[in-house]
Amino acid sequence: MVTESLAYATAHKSTYLEQLIDLCAIPSVSTQPDHKQDVAAAARWLEKDLGRIGFKAQVIETAGHPVVYAEWLHPDKNKPTVLIYGHYDVQPAEPFELWRTPPFTPTVVGGDLYGRGTCDNKGQHFAHIKACESTLAATGSLPCSVKFIIEGEEEIGGPNLPGLIQSHRELLACDVVIISDGALLDMHTPSIEYGLRGLMGLELTIRTAAQDLHSGIFGGNIANPIMVLARLLAEMKNDRGVITIPHFYDDVRILELDERMALSRVPINETTMMSQTGAPGVTGEPGFTVAERLGARPTFEINGMWGGYTGVGAKTVLPAEAHAKITCRLVPYMDPRKIYDLVVAHMKTLMPANCELSISPYHGGARAALIDRKAPQFRAAARAAAKTYGSEPLYILEGGSIPVVNDFQDVLEKPVILLGFGLPTDNLHAPNEHFAIACFEKGIEASIRFLDELTTV
Amino acid sequence: MVTESLAYATAHKSTYLEQLIDLCAIPSVSTQPDHKQDVAAAARWLEKDLGRIGFKAQVIETAGHPVVYAEWLHPDKNKPTVLIYGHYDVQPAEPFELWRTPPFTPTVVGGDLYGRGTCDNKGQHFAHIKACESTLAATGSLPCSVKFIIEGEEEIGGPNLPGLIQSHRELLACDVVIISDGALLDMHTPSIEYGLRGLMGLELTIRTAAQDLHSGIFGGNIANPIMVLARLLAEMKNDRGVITIPHFYDDVRILELDERMALSRVPINETTMMSQTGAPGVTGEPGFTVAERLGARPTFEINGMWGGYTGVGAKTVLPAEAHAKITCRLVPYMDPRKIYDLVVAHMKTLMPANCELSISPYHGGARAALIDRKAPQFRAAARAAAKTYGSEPLYILEGGSIPVVNDFQDVLEKPVILLGFGLPTDNLHAPNEHFAIACFEKGIEASIRFLDELTTV
Repeated sequence: MVTESLAYATAHKSTYLEQLIDLCAIPSVSTQPDHKQDVAAAARWLEKDLGRIGFKAQVIETAGHPVVYAEWLHPDKNKPTVLIYGHYDVQPAEPFELWRTPPFTPTVVGGDLYGRGTCDNKGQHFAHIKACESTLAATGSLPCSVKFIIEGEEEIGGPNLPGLIQSHRELLACDVVIISDGALLDMHTPSIEYGLRGLMGLELTIRTAAQDLHSGIFGGNIANPIMVLARLLAEMKNDRGVITIPHFYDDVRILELDERMALSRVPINETTMMSQTGAPGVTGEPGFTVAERLGARPTFEINGMWGGYTGVGAKTVLPAEAHAKITCRLVPYMDPRKIYDLVVAHMKTLMPANCELSISPYHGGARAALIDRKAPQFRAAARAAAKTYGSEPLYILEGGSIPVVNDFQDVLEKPVILLGFGLPTDNLHAPNEHFAIACFEKGIEASIRFLDELTTV
Repeated sequence: MVTESLAYATAHKSTYLEQLIDLCAIPSVSTQPDHKQDVAAAARWLEKDLGRIGFKAQVIETAGHPVVYAEWLHPDKNKPTVLIYGHYDVQPAEPFELWRTPPFTPTVVGGDLYGRGTCDNKGQHFAHIKACESTLAATGSLPCSVKFIIEGEEEIGGPNLPGLIQSHRELLACDVVIISDGALLDMHTPSIEYGLRGLMGLELTIRTAAQDLHSGIFGGNIANPIMVLARLLAEMKNDRGVITIPHFYDDVRILELDERMALSRVPINETTMMSQTGAPGVTGEPGFTVAERLGARPTFEINGMWGGYTGVGAKTVLPAEAHAKITCRLVPYMDPRKIYDLVVAHMKTLMPANCELSISPYHGGARAALIDRKAPQFRAAARAAAKTYGSEPLYILEGGSIPVVNDFQDVLEKPVILLGFGLPTDNLHAPNEHFAIACFEKGIEASIRFLDELTTV
């Protein structure tokens, strides 16, 4: 069955590429009100294509941009159900003058398709659609039930998707979610992210006087809020980089030995960190590798700090206020609300009496996501990737957060597979975004194989 | 001689007030190019008035606003020479809508003359001019030689005065300089400032990466420059408020016991500090009173600090840079250049290897000024003040810096007397600036008495 499907996909690869070019020609920029009609047009385009290949497709309206939903339900109700997530909205293309080809006139140059959205994310979810088309056309069926949910608000933070997942939980019911919105390590090295860090954020203000003061008249007698803040922040970590907030690490998930072995094979290390950042060196918690710190250890990060005079030259002011923005990346089993409380409590115990501290959380916060590497759906994705790309995938703990993963996990309570089809050099969110045609074709193959492997669990 | 002069001043007080109103009606705002002609007009007005009363007066052009110079030289060359400094330029009057009377239509309300410049500084140096006028008219002579130097750039930092003092050092040669550009403690309590703090300033930048980074992808592995800066600044003081930079206090002048006794009578304390600032408490170096910390102890003050994202809401950035502006107030015998070197050296020893520190000084820096309280000119000013205001003056160490005091001390090598005629509530630099008419009249009396006391040294 896989052989026929793959043969069909190969035979129709030019047609599929033409179709992808059509889809990417629609400037579905979700942040720009001028493009509202284009966003809607992209949704209808996908609804039509999914309908044409045999899915029952619909456009679900939201308070913002619509969501495309489509399903092909297997007659055998014992077959598993896959929910495939993607987003058809794209980043703005500005600055236009830095594009070598027009961003919404998708153009093949060498082996790459250039254009906004070719990789992020149209090319990747379209590969899944073409996998289904190939399998349906070649075999008359899919090996399992398949549902698509393709949103139009990912690039604006997906404000309406969590509510929609909640209200459509029965429609979306499945055994596994797959998201292809990332990258291979290279064309021959697939990777699957099995963890994402969570987030807790807060903003704090220290006030020492009613208004800014003359540093000559009051300096030495009235506390300097920037110094108070600096001393407070300095107390949050020791000089080895370990966070010193009591109980901060209490719930942190401990890595298993086999996991540490697997992470040691991931090509993320001091050298890659330094070359990607221009930093003169790497720092971090002792006893952990770079890849472990990235995904398996929490952080306490100051995102911004300000106070007093920040213009040109000197101003001998003793400021009245200082501010900082903090976010902590969290790992599995840490509760954002508990961590917020621990940070606040520790800061309060450290504050001198001669100043006022106020702290407010950023709404939300997110728990870390962890996907069971031993789950059969995960193993199926790993086998599909290995067969497609010619080597075993590497398993990565991602340092960032993808909120939709939590939304799916929380509501649907099924594993989420993160298998990217792009390359790290695809210029996402930047001028000259592109997607290798080989990546598109391999993505179709990986998707065909994944559906097949899932039924041979 | 003093009796006749004082009687003359009293008899002509209405005329003197009318003249002051004329002078204050000239909007000599030095910072605003639109007022350039008004600034020049104020200089000519003073030149004319000084000429009329018997001084040899001239307007000296500079690269900026002109300086008024006038002299009355005593035939007896053994008599001392007083140099009286003032400034005829004023702060901008904006915001106009907060003034209850038009700022450049000086208006008497109750016992006060309202208008921009009435106190800062036209009313104060004009009191000296009227003292000379009264004495000359009543007695036909002054008891000593008197020189006036009245600049037009004080409110813009006096860029041209230091050079002019240097180039005109022979013209300005004197035995004592007197500056009336401050305030009594109250109408019955004169004060003389016998010390001013100096200043050393620098700006520093800490860089940890080539550009801002994603806090999820790099957080935990790349140093956070704000945290590095916070830790660095926190190391500059201990938790008792003592500066911990090695050798920072080495050259600090030790207060004499009688001086500490005198300072203990100055009504500057925790209560006044808290009421003036709205601070919930006072902090500072242990072992010193508020008044001692204000004038006799150096500071390490952060005037501004910034880095990363400072807008609304959260942004999960790991910044590449953080910045701070620092000024240290210095006390006598501390050398600004040496202190700069000590701060830089200490910061460098504390910097971790994974980031770059760059530090640059603000040009200049200023040594503290100290006036010998036992100098006969100082004693003369004290006697004049006591007789005028009815109580012994309090001797104060001022926390701020007045650069012109250093310029006079360095070039002319004579004591500078700081005897203010205003009140702390005169709204300098703010809307509704005013000068009590009684302060103006007492200022004339104090000046008449000072010239007299100086010759009875």
